[in-house]
Amino acid sequence: MEKVLRDPIHNYIFIQHQIILDLINTREFQRLRRIRQLGTASSTFHGAEHSRFTHSVGVYEITRQICDLFQRNYPSKAKDDGLWDDHERLVALCAALLHDIGHGPYSHTFEHIFHTDHEAITAEILTSSTTEVNQVLRRVSADFPQEVASVIQKTYPNPQVVQMISSQIDADRMDYLLRDSYYTGTNYGTFDLTRILRVMRPYKEGITFHISGMHAVEDYIVSRFQMYQQVYFHPVSRSMEVILSHLLKRAQVLYENNELDTAITPHLLLPFFENNFCLSDYLKLDDGVLTTYFIHWCESPDKILNDLANRFLNRKPLKSARFNSQTARLLPKLRILVNEAGYNPEYYTATNDSYDLPYDAYDPTSQKRRTQIELMQDDGTLVELSTISNLVAAITGKVSGDERFFFPKEMLAESSQGEIFAPIYKKFQNYIKNGRITALK
Amino acid sequence: MEKVLRDPIHNYIFIQHQIILDLINTREFQRLRRIRQLGTASSTFHGAEHSRFTHSVGVYEITRQICDLFQRNYPSKAKDDGLWDDHERLVALCAALLHDIGHGPYSHTFEHIFHTDHEAITAEILTSSTTEVNQVLRRVSADFPQEVASVIQKTYPNPQVVQMISSQIDADRMDYLLRDSYYTGTNYGTFDLTRILRVMRPYKEGITFHISGMHAVEDYIVSRFQMYQQVYFHPVSRSMEVILSHLLKRAQVLYENNELDTAITPHLLLPFFENNFCLSDYLKLDDGVLTTYFIHWCESPDKILNDLANRFLNRKPLKSARFNSQTARLLPKLRILVNEAGYNPEYYTATNDSYDLPYDAYDPTSQKRRTQIELMQDDGTLVELSTISNLVAAITGKVSGDERFFFPKEMLAESSQGEIFAPIYKKFQNYIKNGRITALK
Amino acid sequence: MEKVLRDPIHNYIFIQHQIILDLINTREFQRLRRIRQLGTASSTFHGAEHSRFTHSVGVYEITRQICDLFQRNYPSKAKDDGLWDDHERLVALCAALLHDIGHGPYSHTFEHIFHTDHEAITAEILTSSTTEVNQVLRRVSADFPQEVASVIQKTYPNPQVVQMISSQIDADRMDYLLRDSYYTGTNYGTFDLTRILRVMRPYKEGITFHISGMHAVEDYIVSRFQMYQQVYFHPVSRSMEVILSHLLKRAQVLYENNELDTAITPHLLLPFFENNFCLSDYLKLDDGVLTTYFIHWCESPDKILNDLANRFLNRKPLKSARFNSQTARLLPKLRILVNEAGYNPEYYTATNDSYDLPYDAYDPTSQKRRTQIELMQDDGTLVELSTISNLVAAITGKVSGDERFFFPKEMLAESSQGEIFAPIYKKFQNYIKNGRITALK
Amino acid sequence: MEKVLRDPIHNYIFIQHQIILDLINTREFQRLRRIRQLGTASSTFHGAEHSRFTHSVGVYEITRQICDLFQRNYPSKAKDDGLWDDHERLVALCAALLHDIGHGPYSHTFEHIFHTDHEAITAEILTSSTTEVNQVLRRVSADFPQEVASVIQKTYPNPQVVQMISSQIDADRMDYLLRDSYYTGTNYGTFDLTRILRVMRPYKEGITFHISGMHAVEDYIVSRFQMYQQVYFHPVSRSMEVILSHLLKRAQVLYENNELDTAITPHLLLPFFENNFCLSDYLKLDDGVLTTYFIHWCESPDKILNDLANRFLNRKPLKSARFNSQTARLLPKLRILVNEAGYNPEYYTATNDSYDLPYDAYDPTSQKRRTQIELMQDDGTLVELSTISNLVAAITGKVSGDERFFFPKEMLAESSQGEIFAPIYKKFQNYIKNGRITALK
Repeated sequence: MEKVLRDPIHNYIFIQHQIILDLINTREFQRLRRIRQLGTASSTFHGAEHSRFTHSVGVYEITRQICDLFQRNYPSKAKDDGLWDDHERLVALCAALLHDIGHGPYSHTFEHIFHTDHEAITAEILTSSTTEVNQVLRRVSADFPQEVASVIQKTYPNPQVVQMISSQIDADRMDYLLRDSYYTGTNYGTFDLTRILRVMRPYKEGITFHISGMHAVEDYIVSRFQMYQQVYFHPVSRSMEVILSHLLKRAQVLYENNELDTAITPHLLLPFFENNFCLSDYLKLDDGVLTTYFIHWCESPDKILNDLANRFLNRKPLKSARFNSQTARLLPKLRILVNEAGYNPEYYTATNDSYDLPYDAYDPTSQKRRTQIELMQDDGTLVELSTISNLVAAITGKVSGDERFFFPKEMLAESSQGEIFAPIYKKFQNYIKNGRITALK
Repeated sequence: MEKVLRDPIHNYIFIQHQIILDLINTREFQRLRRIRQLGTASSTFHGAEHSRFTHSVGVYEITRQICDLFQRNYPSKAKDDGLWDDHERLVALCAALLHDIGHGPYSHTFEHIFHTDHEAITAEILTSSTTEVNQVLRRVSADFPQEVASVIQKTYPNPQVVQMISSQIDADRMDYLLRDSYYTGTNYGTFDLTRILRVMRPYKEGITFHISGMHAVEDYIVSRFQMYQQVYFHPVSRSMEVILSHLLKRAQVLYENNELDTAITPHLLLPFFENNFCLSDYLKLDDGVLTTYFIHWCESPDKILNDLANRFLNRKPLKSARFNSQTARLLPKLRILVNEAGYNPEYYTATNDSYDLPYDAYDPTSQKRRTQIELMQDDGTLVELSTISNLVAAITGKVSGDERFFFPKEMLAESSQGEIFAPIYKKFQNYIKNGRITALK
Repeated sequence: MEKVLRDPIHNYIFIQHQIILDLINTREFQRLRRIRQLGTASSTFHGAEHSRFTHSVGVYEITRQICDLFQRNYPSKAKDDGLWDDHERLVALCAALLHDIGHGPYSHTFEHIFHTDHEAITAEILTSSTTEVNQVLRRVSADFPQEVASVIQKTYPNPQVVQMISSQIDADRMDYLLRDSYYTGTNYGTFDLTRILRVMRPYKEGITFHISGMHAVEDYIVSRFQMYQQVYFHPVSRSMEVILSHLLKRAQVLYENNELDTAITPHLLLPFFENNFCLSDYLKLDDGVLTTYFIHWCESPDKILNDLANRFLNRKPLKSARFNSQTARLLPKLRILVNEAGYNPEYYTATNDSYDLPYDAYDPTSQKRRTQIELMQDDGTLVELSTISNLVAAITGKVSGDERFFFPKEMLAESSQGEIFAPIYKKFQNYIKNGRITALK
Repeated sequence: MEKVLRDPIHNYIFIQHQIILDLINTREFQRLRRIRQLGTASSTFHGAEHSRFTHSVGVYEITRQICDLFQRNYPSKAKDDGLWDDHERLVALCAALLHDIGHGPYSHTFEHIFHTDHEAITAEILTSSTTEVNQVLRRVSADFPQEVASVIQKTYPNPQVVQMISSQIDADRMDYLLRDSYYTGTNYGTFDLTRILRVMRPYKEGITFHISGMHAVEDYIVSRFQMYQQVYFHPVSRSMEVILSHLLKRAQVLYENNELDTAITPHLLLPFFENNFCLSDYLKLDDGVLTTYFIHWCESPDKILNDLANRFLNRKPLKSARFNSQTARLLPKLRILVNEAGYNPEYYTATNDSYDLPYDAYDPTSQKRRTQIELMQDDGTLVELSTISNLVAAITGKVSGDERFFFPKEMLAESSQGEIFAPIYKKFQNYIKNGRITALK
C-alpha cells in the first residue's frame, strides 16, 4: 500500500502507512483545508491562499524523507548509540502531520481575542477520545496518542524526533518557507532542501549537520530572515490583522452589551463570546465561518462593526508608519488627531506589539544550547553555526525592529481646500516622513 | 501611477490605470478572493486552492501584455486598416479583469440546482447602478459599462478585443492553464506564453498568429487537452461535485417540505431555495457561506443531508466506473444494487452527463470560421491550425468520452463472510472490470 | 561511500559504487566533457553547449533511480518470476553510464565522412584491454566488459536491463529530453519523470507501465515529438551540419590530392584522412581538435576550404527551403542557378536526406512488438499505448516530412539594379514561396 | 526588424538594432562561443559548460531592459536633468554586448602566465581597424568605437551608462549570477531581477534604487556572496586552475630551453611563448586550441608536462587544505614533504594567493563613494545600503579568507605497511585536521 498526493513543493507526497492515510481522512484534519496557512497575508500576496492542510502534508513528507535518509545511512545498531532507531518513524510521522491540527481560523488574532490556545487544543485533539484523530492513533497503542502529543510538546525523550519537528531547522520551517515562497510568488524562501537533508545526521543530543553543508544551512537561515522581513512582517497584512482583531473585539463588546444584531445569530461564535467553549465548538470554526458572520455584520446598525467588517472583507487596509523608542512618545498625539478626524482610536489605530507578530522570528537570545544549530566537523567535534558564518552572526539575536503605528488611510489624504478635516490631516502628516514617525522641527 | 501585484504566474501584474485599481478594490471583485477557481478540484490536487481573484488579475495581465505588443508592433494608422487601435485598450482590460465577476461559489453545480446564470449576472454586475463596479466603470463614460459587458458577451464590434478575451486561444484560457498547472503541481498546462504573444497579431477579422509560432500554438492546444484529461475531468473531483449537487438538492427538497432544521436558518440561501433572489443576495454568497451551512447540516436529523454534508466537508468521495453506449443499459441494474445495499440511488449515484463537466472542452465541431485558430504565412495568407498539425488534428472535434457512473465506495468493499450486504457487493463488483462497467459473461 | 555530483536536471547524481566513480574518472569518459551533446544545435539555441559527459551521468542517475524503485517495489523472489533481480543493478548502471562513450566530435557528420561507427567503438572501448574503462570493468569479472557491451548492443538476455537503456521510453531518451530542454531554454521536452518512474514495472518481457500513468507516458511521447520538430530538426542547425560535412569532405579531397597546406599538419586527423585509424587515434579527437584545425584552415589558400571553415566557425548558416516528392524535380534547376551565381553546388548545396538527421525520430513502423510501449491494466493484461491515446496515434508511424534543400544565403539577396548576379538571384527566388520550393506558374 | 534569441535565463533576447545583430555575427564575437564562461568550474559543477557568448548576450539583454524602463519612466526632458537620455541607448547596448570580448581561453590563468591583458585587448578589438567589430561600430560614427571602449573603461562621461555595465550592481553581475546559478544547478545565485529593475532609477551621479526595493538589492548582494563562497571559490576548480597554470608554465620553460617536443609544434601558442604576439594571434586562441596541445603533451617525453597535461584533461585535481597567517609558517615543511614524496613542489604545490582568485569578490574597502549602492528614500535623499541592511553590513569590507595550500592527492593516501612513501605521507597528514593546516602538538 503506497498512495501519493500531488504536491507543488515536493512533487509527490508518499503515504506508506494506513495510519497516516486514515489520519489525513479524519474530519479534524480535513478541516485544515478550510483554514488558510498565512491568514491575512493573501491580502498582500494574492497567490498565498494555500491552507494549513497543504503545509501539514508537506511537513509530513519532509519528515518521511529524513527518516528514510537516517535509516539508510545511520541506522542504530545498539541501544543509545546515538543513531536512528526506525521504530521512532511512526511517532515522528504522526507528530509531523498533526503538529498544526489545533490551529483555528486566523489563529493568532483569534487566540488573542478569545483566549484559545492552539497548542493546548492540538494536544486535546490527539488525546481526547472524542476525536477521529485519537481513534486512529489509538489503533497503534493506548499510549500512542500521548506519545505523539509529547513530541509536539517537546517532552518526548528522543531529541532526534523532537528536533525533526521543532528546532531552528526542522521539517515545519523548511516546508513553510518553501511553500509560502512558492505560493506568494517571491523567491526569498528558497534554499537547497536536498542538500540540507543530505548533511543531516542524528547524534545523541539530537540532530546535527555535517560541516560540508554549512552554506546550505546558512542559506536557509538567511532565507528565513528574508521571508520574515518581506512576507510575514509585511505591514499591509499586519494591518489587516489589526482590523480583524478590532472587528472581533467590537463584536464581543456588542455581544456583552446585548447590542449585537439578534436577527442573525452567530451561532458558532457564541461559545467564544461567552468564554465557554468545548473542543467540538472549536472544531466547527474555519475561515468561512468567520467571513460568513462578517458578511452579515456588513449590514450591522453598529457603525464600527459594519465599517470594520467591510474593511476586512473588501480589503481596505490601514496605513502605517514606523516608530522607535524615541518617537513612541508621539503616538498619543497621533491618536488624538485620529480621534479628531472622526475615528475611534481604540478601533482605528494600533501599535504592533510583539503579540501581533504572527510568527516567532529567529531568536537564539535565550541561549539554551539545545536549540542552536550545531555543525559536525570531520573529526566529530561540533561547532555552532553563527561562530563560522558571518551572515548568520549578523542576524543572530537581533530583534526585528519593525514597530509600526497603524491608522486609517484617510489620514494621509491630500487635503483639498474646502475639506473639513484638512487641517487635521495636515497636522498628522507633518509627523510622518519617509514612512517613519518623526518629531516636528 | 503604476502599481504592481506580486503574482506567481506572471511575476508581477502591472496596474497602470486608476480605473483598473479601483475595479480591483470594489466589493464585488474582492469577493472573488473567497471563491476558489477550481471548486472541488482541490480535493484531488490539494495545492489548487487558488481563488477566482488570482485568475482574474492574471487574465488582465495577459491582456495588458497583448495590448502593449499590438501597440508597439501593429499600431493602427488609418481607420479599418485591421491594425490595433489603442483606444480599445481600456475596454479590453476591463473586460479581461471582469469576465468572471458573475461567478458564485461552486458555480456550475450551484447554477444547475438553483438556476442562476453567471453570465447574466456578470452583465448585471457591470450594468446595474447598484454595484461599485458599475460606479467605477461609469466614470469612463455612461456607455462604458455596457461596452465592457458586450465584449464579454462577444457582441462588441471589434473582433480583436473580443478574441483577446474569448476565443480558442485567449487570455482567459492561457492564464488558467498556466495557473491551474502551477497550483496543482502538475506540469501539463505549461506552454510558451512569451512565444505565443510574440507571434500574435491583429487583422481585420480578429487575431491571428504568425506561422513561425505554429509549434507553440500546437503545444498550447495539446497542453489544454492534457489538463482536461488529467485535472479538470478527474473522477474524484467530479464525484465531489456529485455529492455537492445532491447535498444542495436534498436541502432544497427538505426546505420545500418544511423539513429543514429551523433552529439554524441558512439565511443567505433562502432567496435561492425560494427561487426569488436579487443581485445583492447573490453577491453575499461565497465558498465559506456554503460550507458554514454544511457544518450545521452535519448535525441535521435528516440522515441523507447529514451524511452528504459530512462526505463533502470531510472528503469522502464516491467511486466511479466508466461506461459507454453499450454498457449504459447496465446502469439501472447497478442502481438497484446500490439501493439494495441501503443507499438511495437518487442521492448516492449519478452519471456524468455533459452538463456536469465543469469546463467546456476544446470542441470546434461547430464550424464557425471565426473561432478557428488561423496562422498567417509569410505572404499574408491564412491557414487553419489543424490542417498543418497532426497533433491538433488528432484531437479536433473529438468528444472526450469519459462517461462515468458514480456510486458509494462501500460497494467495492471486500466482502467478508458474515457481512450482511456481502452478496450484493459481490454482485455489483462483477460488473466492474479495469475501472469499466462490463457485461457479465 | 556515497558521492554526489550537482546536476541541474536531477539536482544530485548519487554515486554509490566505487566502480562507477572509477569509470567516471577514466580518460575515455572524461573526454566526453570535450564533446558537445547537441553538436551544431548551439548555433541555433546558444544555451545548449552541454557535453556528452553531463548527459551520460544523467542517464546513469535515471537508471539508478529505476533500479531503486524496482528493488523496493518489485524484488524478484524466485528465478524467472519476471520481477527485478538486483544483481543486475551494476551491469545496468555501467551500461547506462557508458552507452555513449564511443561518440566522437560531431559524431553523425564525422561518421558519414570518415566511416567511423560510434557503436562499434563503444563496444571496443568496453572490451579492449588498452582502455582504462576496460580495466575498471574487468575488476568486476573477466566477462563483465562484454556483458556491459551486450546490454548496449541489446543482446543481453535480460530484457528489463536492455529496455532500461534502449527502448521507446528509456533512461537515455528521458535524460536527453529533459536536459536538452533545460539547456536550450525551450520547455517542449519537459514531462513528469517522477510519475513515469512511479508507474514503471518489470515483467517477463521487459518493462511495462501501469495504465494509471498513461497520460504521463503520452506526454513524454508528445514532448519527444515536439523536441524533434522544434530543436533537433531545426533547419539552421542542420545547415551548420551541412557546412561541417562539406568542410571535412573538402579537406579530405585536398589531402588526397596533396593540396592541403602542409605548413600546418592536422596530425590528429591524418589517420582518418588515410582511413587507417586505431582506437587510440579516435580517442584523441574532440570538438576542440576539429575547431583548432578549422582555425588554421580559415587561412588556407584553397578558397572553398577557407570559406567553409569561416562559415562554420563564425556561424554563417546556409538558408533552406522545404521540398517534397513533387517539387524535388526542381532541385537540379536550383543547383544550376547556385552554380551560375558562383558557388560550387557540391559544396554549397545539399538536400537533407535521412542520413543527415542527427537523431532517430520516433518511428514504430517496424512493428517489432518488443519496442512498443505496453501499459498494464489492473487485471494484468497489457494494452499498447497508441491504441488508447489519440495523441500518440496521431504521430505513430508518421515520417517527419521536413525535407529541405540548402543553399547560400546570398541567393536570397534583394538584388539591386547594378548587381551582376541580380538576375540569377531573382530567378532562384521565384522558386521559393512561404519557405517552400514551388513550381513556377 | 526585431530578432530574438532563445535564452534559458531571459527566455528571449530581443535584438532591435542592425548594429547589434551585426556585432553578434562578427568573428571576434562568435569566437566567444568557444571559450567557457567559468573556465575550470565545470570540473566541479559539470553542468556549467556555458560560454562567454551566452553571458555576453545576457548582459546585453539586461541592459536593453534597463534602457526600456528608464525611457518609459524617467525620460530626460532637459539637458542635465539627471534623467535618461535615450540617445545613450546604443552606446550602452554595444558596451554591454562587448564588455568581455577581450577574454581568451582560461583568461585569468593565461594572463598570469603570458602577461596578456584582456581589458587592453577589449579596447583594441573595439578600436583597431583590423577587426570586424570595429568595422561595424564605425558605421555609427568615427568616434563610436572609442566611445564604447570608454564605457567599458569607465571613462565615459555619463555615469548612468557606466554604472549599467560596471558597478556593484550592474547588468554584468546580474547576468552572471543568474546564469552561473542556472548552469551549475545551484540556486544560490537567484534573486529578483524584475524587482531590482523596477526600482532602478537614473540620477545625476549614476543609478540609484528606490528604497522599497531594499530587500531585493540585499538579496542580490547575499546571493553574490554565496555564489563566491560556494561556486567561484570552490577548491576543486581552483586546484584545476593551479594545474593549468603549472602546465603552461612548464611548457614555456621547456620551450625556452628548447626541450619542447618539436614533432608537434604548438603553432598558435608560439607568439605567446616568445612574448611577441599581436591581436590576430590572440584572436585565434580558444579553449579547444589549448586542449588540443594538451592532448599532444599527454605523450610528451617530459614527465612533468606529460603528467600535468593528463591531470588537467582527465580531471585529476590536487587536494588542498586551508591555512591562515599563523599556520602559513608550516608551508615550507609541507613542501619539503611533497618533494620527498617525489613531486617537484614548484609544479605540484601552490598557495592560493589573491591573484589566483578567478573573480573579484565584493570588496567595498576602497571607499570610493561612487561605487556604493545608494537607495533613494521617498523624499529624494539617499542612504547607503550597508547602513540599513544587517546582512550586507555583515559582509561589507570583509576579505574572503579562504587561503589554501594545494598538493597532490597522493599525499593523503592511506599508507599501507610496505609502501615506500608511507612514513612521509603519514608525517604530512599529521599537519592536516578538519581540512585545515594545523601545528603538531
